[in-house]
Amino acid sequence: MTYLSSESQDGEPLSSVYPHLIGYADMKLRAFSVEEAAESCDAVFLARGNGWAMKHARQLLDAGCRVIDLAADFRLEDPDVWESYYKVPHEAQELLEDAVYGLPELHRDCIRGARLVANPGCYPTSATLALAPAVAGRWIETGDIIVNSASGVSGAGRSRTEAAYLYGEVEQNCRAYGVGNHRHTPEIEQELTGLAGEEIKVTFTPHLVPMTRGICTTVYAELAEGADEEDVRAAYEDFYQDAPFVRVLPAGKAPETKQVLGSNYCFVSPVLVERTRRLIVLSVVDNLVKGAAGQAIQNMNLMLGLDEKAGLDFPAVYP
Amino acid sequence: MTYLSSESQDGEPLSSVYPHLIGYADMKLRAFSVEEAAESCDAVFLARGNGWAMKHARQLLDAGCRVIDLAADFRLEDPDVWESYYKVPHEAQELLEDAVYGLPELHRDCIRGARLVANPGCYPTSATLALAPAVAGRWIETGDIIVNSASGVSGAGRSRTEAAYLYGEVEQNCRAYGVGNHRHTPEIEQELTGLAGEEIKVTFTPHLVPMTRGICTTVYAELAEGADEEDVRAAYEDFYQDAPFVRVLPAGKAPETKQVLGSNYCFVSPVLVERTRRLIVLSVVDNLVKGAAGQAIQNMNLMLGLDEKAGLDFPAVYP
Amino acid sequence: MTYLSSESQDGEPLSSVYPHLIGYADMKLRAFSVEEAAESCDAVFLARGNGWAMKHARQLLDAGCRVIDLAADFRLEDPDVWESYYKVPHEAQELLEDAVYGLPELHRDCIRGARLVANPGCYPTSATLALAPAVAGRWIETGDIIVNSASGVSGAGRSRTEAAYLYGEVEQNCRAYGVGNHRHTPEIEQELTGLAGEEIKVTFTPHLVPMTRGICTTVYAELAEGADEEDVRAAYEDFYQDAPFVRVLPAGKAPETKQVLGSNYCFVSPVLVERTRRLIVLSVVDNLVKGAAGQAIQNMNLMLGLDEKAGLDFPAVYP
Amino acid sequence: MTYLSSESQDGEPLSSVYPHLIGYADMKLRAFSVEEAAESCDAVFLARGNGWAMKHARQLLDAGCRVIDLAADFRLEDPDVWESYYKVPHEAQELLEDAVYGLPELHRDCIRGARLVANPGCYPTSATLALAPAVAGRWIETGDIIVNSASGVSGAGRSRTEAAYLYGEVEQNCRAYGVGNHRHTPEIEQELTGLAGEEIKVTFTPHLVPMTRGICTTVYAELAEGADEEDVRAAYEDFYQDAPFVRVLPAGKAPETKQVLGSNYCFVSPVLVERTRRLIVLSVVDNLVKGAAGQAIQNMNLMLGLDEKAGLDFPAVYP
Repeated sequence: MTYLSSESQDGEPLSSVYPHLIGYADMKLRAFSVEEAAESCDAVFLARGNGWAMKHARQLLDAGCRVIDLAADFRLEDPDVWESYYKVPHEAQELLEDAVYGLPELHRDCIRGARLVANPGCYPTSATLALAPAVAGRWIETGDIIVNSASGVSGAGRSRTEAAYLYGEVEQNCRAYGVGNHRHTPEIEQELTGLAGEEIKVTFTPHLVPMTRGICTTVYAELAEGADEEDVRAAYEDFYQDAPFVRVLPAGKAPETKQVLGSNYCFVSPVLVERTRRLIVLSVVDNLVKGAAGQAIQNMNLMLGLDEKAGLDFPAVYP
Repeated sequence: MTYLSSESQDGEPLSSVYPHLIGYADMKLRAFSVEEAAESCDAVFLARGNGWAMKHARQLLDAGCRVIDLAADFRLEDPDVWESYYKVPHEAQELLEDAVYGLPELHRDCIRGARLVANPGCYPTSATLALAPAVAGRWIETGDIIVNSASGVSGAGRSRTEAAYLYGEVEQNCRAYGVGNHRHTPEIEQELTGLAGEEIKVTFTPHLVPMTRGICTTVYAELAEGADEEDVRAAYEDFYQDAPFVRVLPAGKAPETKQVLGSNYCFVSPVLVERTRRLIVLSVVDNLVKGAAGQAIQNMNLMLGLDEKAGLDFPAVYP
Repeated sequence: MTYLSSESQDGEPLSSVYPHLIGYADMKLRAFSVEEAAESCDAVFLARGNGWAMKHARQLLDAGCRVIDLAADFRLEDPDVWESYYKVPHEAQELLEDAVYGLPELHRDCIRGARLVANPGCYPTSATLALAPAVAGRWIETGDIIVNSASGVSGAGRSRTEAAYLYGEVEQNCRAYGVGNHRHTPEIEQELTGLAGEEIKVTFTPHLVPMTRGICTTVYAELAEGADEEDVRAAYEDFYQDAPFVRVLPAGKAPETKQVLGSNYCFVSPVLVERTRRLIVLSVVDNLVKGAAGQAIQNMNLMLGLDEKAGLDFPAVYP
Repeated sequence: MTYLSSESQDGEPLSSVYPHLIGYADMKLRAFSVEEAAESCDAVFLARGNGWAMKHARQLLDAGCRVIDLAADFRLEDPDVWESYYKVPHEAQELLEDAVYGLPELHRDCIRGARLVANPGCYPTSATLALAPAVAGRWIETGDIIVNSASGVSGAGRSRTEAAYLYGEVEQNCRAYGVGNHRHTPEIEQELTGLAGEEIKVTFTPHLVPMTRGICTTVYAELAEGADEEDVRAAYEDFYQDAPFVRVLPAGKAPETKQVLGSNYCFVSPVLVERTRRLIVLSVVDNLVKGAAGQAIQNMNLMLGLDEKAGLDFPAVYP
């Protein structure tokens, strides 16, 4: 770590904002400067609000930095889709072509050569990893895919100091939100469409549950003719055999968010329901790790030619 | 309250097992005796494990008591379906015809005249109330209904002292379970089939989330031709206009489990997703109240000719 | 309820701010008007920030209303103590003489005749009820009293939308705060001093624990010469024999905050530790009920000559 | 890791019991065999119930293994004190002389040379680290020390599947337990007595709070004549200057359990309350790491001549 930036905490050591980092990150935060960043860094992580990176990434790229953006600016290939979900025009459309969607399990080789990586959203990470083998292998009908997710509250971020995220409102509470129009929907659709070679739409419903970290996604789709449990399961294992951070759990084991808490793993498990001819796939990630910062490091590792697992090779904190 | 029974706490005042009830329930628990129960009570609540009521309800009924069973014994009309889900033969099939499924919003009049009421499961309560108006009004296609539920852990009961229900395993954890074969599935199907006049199957997936009370159910179905938001919403309001414990929330408001915590209410909200032609219905209940004990009291009130709301007319404890 | 006021939600029905109250509190909130309040109400609850009531109580009193203030303005008899803890001068010192500290277990008769009641702080309620019988009966040395409390986060209020109260910061977290200078200290000291007839100082340390409601107070004091378990326990039972909302638990039972959640009860239990000659007293309250709104109603009941328990006679929601 | 043993899971890979460890601990668990353990290991961690190690440690020591016992068997130097708290005679008194109390901050050199280390209890770790500099430097009177602790529930262990540890009973609940007679009391007293050179007694009260991990300890003692904030704080920093896992927080910062969650750190902060002449010391540890397994590894590192921080040099998982 050679450079750390924050507007609101300019001049503070990171460890005074987060005392658990005393001795680990005592470097002072500084208001952002492209020049300083470019000079100090081979790769820069941008973790600002949506719309920020599209204004500043160009300069960093021009200065020779690799850029991993954790916001949504470069995730959607189609600027019209961006505008329809984010309600503002895209201001850096010329970069969209070079940007790679940073889900290594689908785009590992492209990420290796990329200068600009769009780190996926937390929900799309869990949903796309749950569906990719089924879509790629045509084990499901693609017309009626349902993605139902439950997330811990840290997805909202620490600056969202609204009453809705206070402990007293979140505790003992479970609720759906963003029904029918959540911004992560087009990311999931884009990636599945890419895998299927035909347009795929999904119905996606996120829920807030009383935990800090973790996403538990349950996807439902109609089984394709002839699909059976053994084949589907084999297809999942095959699809992820070279993916160091995705584990297909043994049949009969449902993944739990706590099994990946604090780690970069995604645990998935496909289940066939013959009675209603449905494929249900369960997947879990830690939204702050595989769903955000961990996946960003995984992407950086690939971009810089490092071991994909560098700095990430540890299991969950349990219990 | 004139009689309280417990095998494991025979001789103890209820308030010594649950000190919060000191001054409210100091009556001693006694090992169950049909004679004592029949002599002391107009109506008896049975809250034992599955299989117990089918052995003992007959005697109570013969002695003139009304019986409300909180277990599953009399919920399914078809003993074969019972056996296929519960794996033991039904031992009181002759009572099935008289038993009424105790969901007042669907069967109020029958409950009024009933001597034996089967109190619904917690998940079926939330799922059936979410779907009933849509099925009854044919606002949805019935071929691909998905029921996705998240429940607090109290549904497992206090005697389930397994590692899986310890605080350290439940906290910060979310997981699906019983995928494709949960025992509450046939209850939901039976009630929806009754409303539709044709066989309905559902794919039901329950999840455990880190809270004590509450069920948050999200159902997905394909919209019927021509259904629009306003009509569907009006149909929901109409369907529940005489139901004192179901509230259809205003458009744009998603129900939250905390809004019904400790109360007998079910909050529901239908949402149309035009983009994928789906009806999503959100519903919440407190699994221990509308999903169990509260609904049992509501049923007793109806059976005894009391005000349906007697003893239940209070809002949630919030926050 | 005849009048409801809110500055920030002027014009909204209370039930649209808190949907769990639909059907129970659909009255519209209005910006505060002394005239309207005085005209509509026999008793007015003030629940604004510290410093507000001292500006407005006089007018309400002059208009003939009884006033119960839930803030700190009238809790401390000595305006100098007020100023030293609250850092601003007291602006309504002429009312201090008439104000009664609204802890019914100590001041029931005075409250009955009062026009202005200062509703106690949540911590002082639990601490004073834990210590009062021991101080009044001189069962302890008064020189080294320690009050250690743990509170749920709702004590901070819903408008405190700081990062520190977000779910992700509170969950799995326990910490002391306000060490050595918390504003509730002088309330405890004032009440104990009144009971003892000599000046008492206490060392008070509050802690924040990951729950919404509840205060668990543990007090430590040196046993007086000759005090034994039986006598002390009898003294506690005696002291609270006419207090409908304080229960002295049987020996060997430690009170739990969940046993009073949602209720107006305070459970206390004195324990003698002979080995170190200490009296430890455990007490629990729900900070939002006996520690705030419930006690305010209890005070109103007394002021208006109603049954002390009116509207409050129910046990905790458990679990 | 060369050997893993479990009676109840004999034959299972550890990662099938704890799926988060797939890929990290796939070694099979085996019923314990001294011969196998001794042959495979330089150091053996014993983590069984109290009383087990005193039966089996001798054989492992004779076979040349270093032994770190995580139970209480070898923590108390005086077998009479053991018997008075644990209610059974000590069966391996001949080993007590060789056993070293494994708190590296007090006994680093002895641990380096030890063959048998008694890993401290979780509460004594937090309490002793909070008090050691004050006692060693005579900054406090030793006659009236109060130790008040709040712990997450994982301290009870995963095999304690009692109703009291179910999620529904722990959530939203805070309670004291073991008042006046908790078994960790004599450990604290032994270590403080050793530091003071005179007998010290403490009044210790543990509390259960709704979290999985973490202990938050608040100690109270009378300030010695002449002690001032600056000196005491300097003494704390000095005492722990060579301790890699204890951090004295800057004045004004109260430690939080979440700041050490998942890490081997203890954060401490002394606060002087002049008004009542008290020293309050706040300390936090993760009971499963510095309070158990992490400290055991730290001890092993010292015993085997490894870097004290090996395998433990990482901060908390936050939030």
